[in-house]
Amino acid sequence: MKTLVIGAGGMIGRKLTAALPGEDLILHDVVPFEGASAVSDLSTPGEAEKLLAARPQLIFHLAAVVSGEAEADFEKGYRVNLDGTRLLFEAIRKANYRPRVVFTSSIAVFGAPFPEAIGDEFLNAPLTSYGTQKAIGELLLSDYSRRGFFDGIGIRLPTICVRPGKPNKAASGFFSGIIREPLSGQEAVLPVPETVRHWFASPRAAVGFLLHAARMKTEQLGNRRNLSMPGVSATVGEQIAALRRVAGDKVASLIRREPDATIMRIVEGWPRNFDARRALQLGFRADQSFEEIIRIHIEDELQKSPRPRPARG
Amino acid sequence: MKTLVIGAGGMIGRKLTAALPGEDLILHDVVPFEGASAVSDLSTPGEAEKLLAARPQLIFHLAAVVSGEAEADFEKGYRVNLDGTRLLFEAIRKANYRPRVVFTSSIAVFGAPFPEAIGDEFLNAPLTSYGTQKAIGELLLSDYSRRGFFDGIGIRLPTICVRPGKPNKAASGFFSGIIREPLSGQEAVLPVPETVRHWFASPRAAVGFLLHAARMKTEQLGNRRNLSMPGVSATVGEQIAALRRVAGDKVASLIRREPDATIMRIVEGWPRNFDARRALQLGFRADQSFEEIIRIHIEDELQKSPRPRPARG
Repeated sequence: MKTLVIGAGGMIGRKLTAALPGEDLILHDVVPFEGASAVSDLSTPGEAEKLLAARPQLIFHLAAVVSGEAEADFEKGYRVNLDGTRLLFEAIRKANYRPRVVFTSSIAVFGAPFPEAIGDEFLNAPLTSYGTQKAIGELLLSDYSRRGFFDGIGIRLPTICVRPGKPNKAASGFFSGIIREPLSGQEAVLPVPETVRHWFASPRAAVGFLLHAARMKTEQLGNRRNLSMPGVSATVGEQIAALRRVAGDKVASLIRREPDATIMRIVEGWPRNFDARRALQLGFRADQSFEEIIRIHIEDELQKSPRPRPARG
Repeated sequence: MKTLVIGAGGMIGRKLTAALPGEDLILHDVVPFEGASAVSDLSTPGEAEKLLAARPQLIFHLAAVVSGEAEADFEKGYRVNLDGTRLLFEAIRKANYRPRVVFTSSIAVFGAPFPEAIGDEFLNAPLTSYGTQKAIGELLLSDYSRRGFFDGIGIRLPTICVRPGKPNKAASGFFSGIIREPLSGQEAVLPVPETVRHWFASPRAAVGFLLHAARMKTEQLGNRRNLSMPGVSATVGEQIAALRRVAGDKVASLIRREPDATIMRIVEGWPRNFDARRALQLGFRADQSFEEIIRIHIEDELQKSPRPRPARG
């Protein structure tokens, strides 16, 4: 099937592309990457139309300025995350065919105070510009789908863990860092107490969500086309215990506690747990445990990469 | 205080203006009206900036393409209700002062299925383009307020009843029509069963909400700046019983039952009842009963107008 992936150069985009062998792919990103079909800024008027010239029947819209950048650069966040998405949806409407559109939203559409587990009917009250832009994208996706312009589904991804690659400056970075760095023999900094609870999915689970969203019957969604994806709720203490079980004490001892009040304050505003009932009923499947999330990282990143396997403790 | 009213030519705009004697008013609408300071299309780039030239410290944004028109004309609805609102918010951000902004949202941000009473943490899942545009306006208002660009508050108005003036083609028109027309000695058509329940506020209560929103301390709102206003939940049967108590059997007998499946289907998707706890705690006050709503209509419209008083039955 002719398939357009917008944001194909990112981590999830590349893993999704690898999971779509044999499809007729159009791979787009704003930055050049190996295998790109098109490199452009989706928020420039006219660019979305070009991507639709071949009438892809399936469109993954993964592109976004991330949370930290959207907060630091107000105008860029709105331009890329809101205007870019709206220009894409408008181009599809005007192209007058009805492709499936899979949109990656985020648990950042929710803002504290929360119930212990966020259900499918809980208010979207984001506390970041990024979350606001994603929530608006969800509303547009629902309305454009209801009007029959496309067949949309929005999936709110949990925090992806273990995110491969280098440490980054995102406030959430330590959730992956405390697993990834020790497994590679490196020290990692933990800026929050072990009691902090958060909501996770492996990159492999995330790609599974995207593929299921692309293939499922959307009639079952009715008019509520945005879904919180299932995930694993774990405290930092449970993350570390799982790391210890999988890789041993020596590896787990590479985590250095260094409390950071700023990061703690940011993290306190984030969701901790979900009751993702609708997504489960619709066949979306999460990782089984945080231990599985670690094993997936080892299988998909460390055993395939040229980097040395970490020593077992 | 220098006060800008956008949408000042509408029914609520005119009543609000009348309730602001002594204020330094800038009255704007897209259509000319008596007392207008400015007539222009807010969705035309540059127009919002002109309205802010005098740096109004209080801005009421009441302007919108109504539900039926936004559904019939997709592009016009998004242009006026989304782009117009965003252009206003952007102009305020760039003007770099921090006025109070009072935005009229709507219970159309909610879509079925509902709980029996919609609480303050219930999902915004609109089933119309109008509701989508209002929900997006709410999200923008929250984010712009959080960032400190203005001090915003969004109020979700119940269905205004009794709406004065001539019958219109809105699907909700009968809720007012079955009171207004009989009180003026005219027959009114009731297209739905008496069991239909809906959520009401008088024009006088709506103006009270706007004034309270303009004057209250917004620190109490935290980051959740959009509120479902309190109202009166009444069935059509309760509306008619109240009319009978206020105006007698003869007036109530002017209601003619003429079931309309299309209107019934539309109305089934509308909210019936709310638990507007936050707004009540914050000092917003609804009408006491549907009977009071009728008496307000008689006092404010019939006793002041040159039209003859209706005969009592």
